[in-house]
Amino acid sequence: MSIAYYNGDFCDFSEVRIPLSDRCVFFGDGIYDAAIGMDGAIYLQKEHIDRFFANAERMNIKTCFSREELSELLHEVIRRNDFHEYFIYFQLTRTLCERAHSYSGESGSSLLITAKPHSLPPKERKLKLICANDVRYSMCNVKTLNLLPAVIASKAADDRGCDEAVFIRDGIVTECAHSNIFIVKDGVLYTHPEGPFILPGVTRKRVLYFCERLGIGYAEQKFSKEDLFTADEVLVTSTTKLCVKAEEIDGISIEKRGVESVADAIISSLREDYERLRS
Amino acid sequence: MSIAYYNGDFCDFSEVRIPLSDRCVFFGDGIYDAAIGMDGAIYLQKEHIDRFFANAERMNIKTCFSREELSELLHEVIRRNDFHEYFIYFQLTRTLCERAHSYSGESGSSLLITAKPHSLPPKERKLKLICANDVRYSMCNVKTLNLLPAVIASKAADDRGCDEAVFIRDGIVTECAHSNIFIVKDGVLYTHPEGPFILPGVTRKRVLYFCERLGIGYAEQKFSKEDLFTADEVLVTSTTKLCVKAEEIDGISIEKRGVESVADAIISSLREDYERLRS
Repeated sequence: MSIAYYNGDFCDFSEVRIPLSDRCVFFGDGIYDAAIGMDGAIYLQKEHIDRFFANAERMNIKTCFSREELSELLHEVIRRNDFHEYFIYFQLTRTLCERAHSYSGESGSSLLITAKPHSLPPKERKLKLICANDVRYSMCNVKTLNLLPAVIASKAADDRGCDEAVFIRDGIVTECAHSNIFIVKDGVLYTHPEGPFILPGVTRKRVLYFCERLGIGYAEQKFSKEDLFTADEVLVTSTTKLCVKAEEIDGISIEKRGVESVADAIISSLREDYERLRS
Repeated sequence: MSIAYYNGDFCDFSEVRIPLSDRCVFFGDGIYDAAIGMDGAIYLQKEHIDRFFANAERMNIKTCFSREELSELLHEVIRRNDFHEYFIYFQLTRTLCERAHSYSGESGSSLLITAKPHSLPPKERKLKLICANDVRYSMCNVKTLNLLPAVIASKAADDRGCDEAVFIRDGIVTECAHSNIFIVKDGVLYTHPEGPFILPGVTRKRVLYFCERLGIGYAEQKFSKEDLFTADEVLVTSTTKLCVKAEEIDGISIEKRGVESVADAIISSLREDYERLRS
């Protein structure tokens, strides 16, 4: 049981019903965001809400509420669920009565909020990855509901007993199916620059902030599939996992012995940052 | 008012309600097809149903019904609506209780069927087009619900008082936001070859069939944006329009005087083919 919100009503997740005028049904015509939190707080709330509004504007979907009103609704869903730690998900979709690709100025929008219990993976948890061809569109910087290529890649990872799929586009590592990715080489962190091929992850940005604070060198710079396999460390970041090391890609161990970990300092910093929510 | 079908129930379009377990809501995790018809018949029914099943299989979405059972349901929706000419739409989505990118073997599927009145555009109708950057994914040959780039391009065309957007990928004309496209040059038809960048349109294929029958030369061969503007004729094909000439692209007239029309013969053949449904 978990309480969800849809267009003014609170009810159990299993009882939410979406009409055909909600264009998520026919076109995936919507954007979303998600965050984690505990004790009534949302981690990096401002960053998630700002991205949500930016994406709505970019997709020209009306927001009939302010940032403060959205925040209030998110917290109301959290209160009604009474989970200690939680994942909170919010999506905004375009609405219009008839199925037609284009939409008129009469289109409205629908807001859906769901929540479920959440806990971070154990700190020592390491991921197994696979590589997948990045067949996604060139607007990966917008967090939309057009997620089928991510679904297919996630299922392929799952089928091979792995945790995530690393997308490769023209030989370049972009990001993962639902995470960003970093490599560490000679003490420096590298991650794909922002632009149409990656999501500007909130946790990704927080990692760069901690690099600054900890005096760790970093570059937002493209790197190849070969760089991935020869890196000293590989780090995967996302809202739900924060920052986790990878141990294996396509069945090949990528753990280097005798290399001092840069990743550990970042993983600890992010976890401490999150733990500060605890009341 | 129009009667729709969803998972065993018939009700008005406005009363259909989709639960959150239907993954069209979160991921656009589904495929669809659509056809037109009249007097109880569906034009090129076998081709549309075959493509629907092929796409379901490709996306690994379970079909819990046979081709015959689907056909029976489509015709039942048509009977209950009692339109003389109609557009019939059918979509199959993956279902699973929890929102997670990957899906287990326990996933099921949902079938939605809708219908509305339809009529072909007047035979002399000509389209105004715009060019748009093709930012779509590299699986355009699968008819999925991940349609946001097509929505954006269709809206851009609409905003400029035009009918369709022509997608250009790396200088090459692929197809339109919801149609295929052909050019005629020196009596020969050209259209983008099948593959990941275009939908293998049922009407597109029917045009090639009529080229064979009428002795008109054709090539499934890439052509450039420049070729588009210098073509003798430009033809747009889709399920709802069949085959229509374009008169203008990006505000520039593309009609050539004194050129004998190859397009007219094809447009007439397709319309006569469709009219044969009339009982």
